[in-house]
Amino acid sequence: MDSGSLKALAFDVFGTVVDWRGSVIREGEALGREKNFGDVDWAAFADAWRGRYAPSMDRVRRGETPWKNLDALHRASLEELLDEFGIEGLTEADKDHLNKAWHRLDPWPDSVEGLKRLKERYTITTLSNGNVALLNNMAKSAGLPWNLILSAEIVRHYKPDPETYLMVPGLLDLRPEQVMLVAAHPSDLRSAQEHGLRTAYVLRPQEWGPDWQPDPPDPSFDINAEDFLELAEKLGA
Amino acid sequence: MDSGSLKALAFDVFGTVVDWRGSVIREGEALGREKNFGDVDWAAFADAWRGRYAPSMDRVRRGETPWKNLDALHRASLEELLDEFGIEGLTEADKDHLNKAWHRLDPWPDSVEGLKRLKERYTITTLSNGNVALLNNMAKSAGLPWNLILSAEIVRHYKPDPETYLMVPGLLDLRPEQVMLVAAHPSDLRSAQEHGLRTAYVLRPQEWGPDWQPDPPDPSFDINAEDFLELAEKLGA
Repeated sequence: MDSGSLKALAFDVFGTVVDWRGSVIREGEALGREKNFGDVDWAAFADAWRGRYAPSMDRVRRGETPWKNLDALHRASLEELLDEFGIEGLTEADKDHLNKAWHRLDPWPDSVEGLKRLKERYTITTLSNGNVALLNNMAKSAGLPWNLILSAEIVRHYKPDPETYLMVPGLLDLRPEQVMLVAAHPSDLRSAQEHGLRTAYVLRPQEWGPDWQPDPPDPSFDINAEDFLELAEKLGA
Repeated sequence: MDSGSLKALAFDVFGTVVDWRGSVIREGEALGREKNFGDVDWAAFADAWRGRYAPSMDRVRRGETPWKNLDALHRASLEELLDEFGIEGLTEADKDHLNKAWHRLDPWPDSVEGLKRLKERYTITTLSNGNVALLNNMAKSAGLPWNLILSAEIVRHYKPDPETYLMVPGLLDLRPEQVMLVAAHPSDLRSAQEHGLRTAYVLRPQEWGPDWQPDPPDPSFDINAEDFLELAEKLGA
């Protein structure tokens, strides 16, 4: 790929930059120990929480719910899950703390070093359904060196609505082909392609745990990479 | 001031973080030498360009013009000024380059070090009428280590419209009193106060050149400081 005209990399965040599943399990286990919950399958809890993610945003996207940011959607899902998993006795402060586990997700081992290298040559921004406060708190706690934070919250549209992808070249005063979406999810990348952005598929085989397999590399994306260090290598950074 | 609950500092940029006047003069002189313009008073040119800044935004704020970002407003003012100063023979590319002098403004000597110290303890963001691309390009060229970039362009309202000040606690999920506006302009600070933000007045005696004097420190602001290092000191960073 000729990377000469490429100016900005926009990163999907959950699963691509950070390990939401391992981190939510870790946070749940810590809370469980503190509160003596006994047996909770926190892996199943994390998967169920994330399972409600797309459906909750789709209700906003279809206009069935007025705009709610991701903290609010996560919180509504959390209330249902606490019920479902029979977890009782949490205070309002406990629930808020658990909901904000999504603000404290750990980066994949290569994320910070890869982003620092890429930032030397490109503008690096988030392009996430996470709200701005979530993304900023995560950047602070995980050491993610973003140039700026762009979020679905700014345009009040969730991916894959066109407004999200078009926000990046729009606000950075670039042509769509000067922007590349970096994501671990082929469907996100295909939506970005429809709006003229370039695409990099980064495989994250641990995203959904040890028994899961990501889609294989696909030559219809501009770049396929094992991690952000290989991405930096391929982008000359 | 008790800085315990303070979480984020939002910075006015032109004049507060960067020296627009000295930088525009420098850019104009360089262009003049390259193009053999002869005698242009670039200090007067810089002052006249900046003089059109507030009136051009006020036309947008009053709804007389549809939304235009600051690059577009600067460009319209530039066309008038080239005429007024009798500057001829610039290509479209030359004009674009000169207009983007505002993307390449130099920081005051204390800005980068002060921001780095403040970032250790607080979220640091822009809160500027400059558009996002301008602020990102400036951050890249001047080494300004923002956590995020918030701009009038995001809410399509210019300061002092309330939407701009309220955007910061809104997007960062903070209460207004957890946010402090840092600015070299008392009027900006007074508007921020009306919306519950805390305020820090940083004196920039060179903003309008050697023959100009800023307003004196004022105890109605939470902090008065000579520069960002004194600000960091006073904020325990």
